[in-house]
Amino acid sequence: MKQRAEITLHEIAGRLEGELTGDHGDIVISNVASLKDASAGDISFLAHRRHLKDLQVTNASAVVLPKEISFDGLPAIKVESPYYAFSQLLHMFYDVPYSPKGVDKGAVLGKEVHIGRDVTIYPFVYIEDRVSIGDNVIIYPWTFIGEGSSVGDDSLIYPNVTIRERCCIGRHVIIHSGAVIGSDGFGFVPYKGSHHKVPQVGGVIIEDDVEIGANTTIDRGTLGNTVIRRGTKIDNLVQIAHNVTVGEDCIFAAQVGIAGSTEIGNHVTMAGQAGVTGHVHIGDKVTVAGQTGVTKDVKDGQTVSGMPAIPHREWLRAMAIFEDLPELKRKISELEDKISEIESKSRNQNAK
Amino acid sequence: MKQRAEITLHEIAGRLEGELTGDHGDIVISNVASLKDASAGDISFLAHRRHLKDLQVTNASAVVLPKEISFDGLPAIKVESPYYAFSQLLHMFYDVPYSPKGVDKGAVLGKEVHIGRDVTIYPFVYIEDRVSIGDNVIIYPWTFIGEGSSVGDDSLIYPNVTIRERCCIGRHVIIHSGAVIGSDGFGFVPYKGSHHKVPQVGGVIIEDDVEIGANTTIDRGTLGNTVIRRGTKIDNLVQIAHNVTVGEDCIFAAQVGIAGSTEIGNHVTMAGQAGVTGHVHIGDKVTVAGQTGVTKDVKDGQTVSGMPAIPHREWLRAMAIFEDLPELKRKISELEDKISEIESKSRNQNAK
Amino acid sequence: MKQRAEITLHEIAGRLEGELTGDHGDIVISNVASLKDASAGDISFLAHRRHLKDLQVTNASAVVLPKEISFDGLPAIKVESPYYAFSQLLHMFYDVPYSPKGVDKGAVLGKEVHIGRDVTIYPFVYIEDRVSIGDNVIIYPWTFIGEGSSVGDDSLIYPNVTIRERCCIGRHVIIHSGAVIGSDGFGFVPYKGSHHKVPQVGGVIIEDDVEIGANTTIDRGTLGNTVIRRGTKIDNLVQIAHNVTVGEDCIFAAQVGIAGSTEIGNHVTMAGQAGVTGHVHIGDKVTVAGQTGVTKDVKDGQTVSGMPAIPHREWLRAMAIFEDLPELKRKISELEDKISEIESKSRNQNAK
Repeated sequence: MKQRAEITLHEIAGRLEGELTGDHGDIVISNVASLKDASAGDISFLAHRRHLKDLQVTNASAVVLPKEISFDGLPAIKVESPYYAFSQLLHMFYDVPYSPKGVDKGAVLGKEVHIGRDVTIYPFVYIEDRVSIGDNVIIYPWTFIGEGSSVGDDSLIYPNVTIRERCCIGRHVIIHSGAVIGSDGFGFVPYKGSHHKVPQVGGVIIEDDVEIGANTTIDRGTLGNTVIRRGTKIDNLVQIAHNVTVGEDCIFAAQVGIAGSTEIGNHVTMAGQAGVTGHVHIGDKVTVAGQTGVTKDVKDGQTVSGMPAIPHREWLRAMAIFEDLPELKRKISELEDKISEIESKSRNQNAK
Repeated sequence: MKQRAEITLHEIAGRLEGELTGDHGDIVISNVASLKDASAGDISFLAHRRHLKDLQVTNASAVVLPKEISFDGLPAIKVESPYYAFSQLLHMFYDVPYSPKGVDKGAVLGKEVHIGRDVTIYPFVYIEDRVSIGDNVIIYPWTFIGEGSSVGDDSLIYPNVTIRERCCIGRHVIIHSGAVIGSDGFGFVPYKGSHHKVPQVGGVIIEDDVEIGANTTIDRGTLGNTVIRRGTKIDNLVQIAHNVTVGEDCIFAAQVGIAGSTEIGNHVTMAGQAGVTGHVHIGDKVTVAGQTGVTKDVKDGQTVSGMPAIPHREWLRAMAIFEDLPELKRKISELEDKISEIESKSRNQNAK
Repeated sequence: MKQRAEITLHEIAGRLEGELTGDHGDIVISNVASLKDASAGDISFLAHRRHLKDLQVTNASAVVLPKEISFDGLPAIKVESPYYAFSQLLHMFYDVPYSPKGVDKGAVLGKEVHIGRDVTIYPFVYIEDRVSIGDNVIIYPWTFIGEGSSVGDDSLIYPNVTIRERCCIGRHVIIHSGAVIGSDGFGFVPYKGSHHKVPQVGGVIIEDDVEIGANTTIDRGTLGNTVIRRGTKIDNLVQIAHNVTVGEDCIFAAQVGIAGSTEIGNHVTMAGQAGVTGHVHIGDKVTVAGQTGVTKDVKDGQTVSGMPAIPHREWLRAMAIFEDLPELKRKISELEDKISEIESKSRNQNAK
């Protein structure tokens, strides 16, 4: 739902820290849209050169361009990263000013709960004893926060989230609906023919600026903590097992799974449905392709694919041949035939 | 829980629009069961020829048969699709008549909420401002419906569902427990070393007759909508990312994942744990096998398998050889040895 | 949160049914920790020989050892299974004594609900008519228990769980947050171009000592039941489809999926993200590797890998060559060249 109606190009250029071309500062902009969908009054942006043809025909009234591109057809603001500018424009036109609603009397709070300033706690929230909630925190209905847990300033928790006991959620954290933080790690000892539960007495630490997707599950440590470090973004339906450490500024796409005690470095990208086995170490700046199964350590900077995961280039080379296996098999048969023939001729010649 | 006790074969035949063999219309039927499990008083059905042997020995009192099969051992009703007739029989014996309970006083409703006739809204439901709820809608406890969203007539929402703001749910839609509709798309801009959130200001459109499985997540669009078209059925734990369009009458099995902005045609079947990368186009009547990873466009009518996905027949041919790779490698070594030998002989002869 | 402060080695040895070395029974132990993390006052344990070097340098005040290992550096308790002893030690130091809180007046209970002794039912729980709850059961907020369902003695249900109608949950069962038990099976009949819902009128039976992970989904049977047998442990985000039977003492890791009507034996291990197609039979003591796709029956005792699943050893042998496919292809080309050369020479000789 759009919030702002009109901003001048001059003001927009200032807020984007961009350079406005020509003398168009007074033009009034009322929305942001893609080059294809924009109409008069909208500002758009060129994120990739492959959209240059859309730029020629857009109905936008202005456009955000990368510094290295010149285009005279429209009033333009030149910036370092047009896609980042797009995110800023969305904030400008769509951000809803926050007005705290306080603690609804339909929420249930335990003893010794500390609540910061300017919070919004909806009805049907359940907060156990000795929980600490920071300033400006928003907690939607049916969120459970277990004994001794804490939620840092400016964090936002959507409906139906469970945060179990002794979990520490940082500042500026967003947790989407249905996520479960601090469920028991999956630990059992086989003993005399059946599986005995290993009590899971550790916790979870979610550092600042982390985002956790809908229905994602992050288990508590057996002893010690499961840790998600600052700035990491996790999509929906992801599984993070007990005692895993995920580094800073990682990106985990949907349905990724990380098994117990694995350590993942900083700036790691895991594409959708990829998995990592337990007790391995993934270095910094590693990229794991979709549906990959990582079964051993991966060094810094590598890109891996396949099950089991191997360097992406080798996987590409091998997969390129996979489809040709029937052809390879046929060639081998032909070679066998030809060699038989040669050998037979040779025997005949020797026999002469 | 069975609801109806007794229906005559005559009435059943009429409601199935089937042809009753012989003079058995007065037989009273009290339940429906599989050929194997049926006992006296039950009606059963032959869905596949491979169950013909079960037909010989069933204890059912009557049976539903496909038109092309003749069987004199039991009173029979002949229909076009016995499996469809089975689903109709389940409705006959098990459907619970609906008696609306109204809006429970333990539900919380915002301002300007429109509620249709004959609804059932359980306690602990939370409905924000300007939401519209159609006639005969049932909403179980702990469902959240965000500002400006709507739910069409005859829809059924199970417990613990989150529907965020500005999502449009059609008529005759079923949403199972724990599903999350309209969570933020997973959009971030890397800028100066960290990931900045791209506000997700679009919505979700779920058309009529869609079913959404338990704990499935459907993200809202960044700009514009994520769309699930009429008649599509989605199983549990499925991920549909932002700005995806899924066509009509598709079947998505459990744990499928579709990445952002991908377009999927009509009558597409995705088997369990399959995934599709972002920004690709899947044509109409495509079948994607289980655990397949689709990385590029797929044309109408194709069946694909593997990671990366290739035509199913080619994949079958290649996989048939995969297991034989050690044998192929051995043959190549043998050929190399033989050729070395031939070459060496040839050199010896020339040297003579 | 640690509960107990001080226990003597003598008492610990007795409770572990272990043999205390030397004359150290009076030493007071205040916590349990890994060899690496232990400090003075802690007891630790040697679970694997590969941690022997940690044993040399641990700061623990005592250690639990397997019977066959001798170590004089520390007071030791010798037991059959140190890892099982570790789980017992966690119980000793961390178990919280249970004090029942009764039925909160903010919970909603239907008619003819039977509640056992010493239960704890939190606010915002919703229990429908004719439900039976055993002794010592704990049900956290926002759990739904549908009409005619039952929960056995000593079971523990975390927040936000949905248990639909006519599901039977055994004794000592743990269900983690967000799990959905008894959602409709995914059954549709294609008829005249669209998919018609097959009513799902069966139930779910969860036997004693089962644990079900966060956001896991277990669908009800179409007719008859979906069954999880005694002692089976299921991790997070797992999908169990309608009419599946899972045997006793199985271990299913996160994100596993089992399609409809499949039967799984006892003591089966499924590693993460593995899947099994519908209508197949998995024998007892089968191990399915991570991300494996099982497409047909698997006999007792087998270990399988790959998609489609084959015996693990064959898969290992084939995968070992997969990476070398480019090399194999190159060799085949070389062989073809050499043979062409030999054939051409031979023709030349014959032409002489």
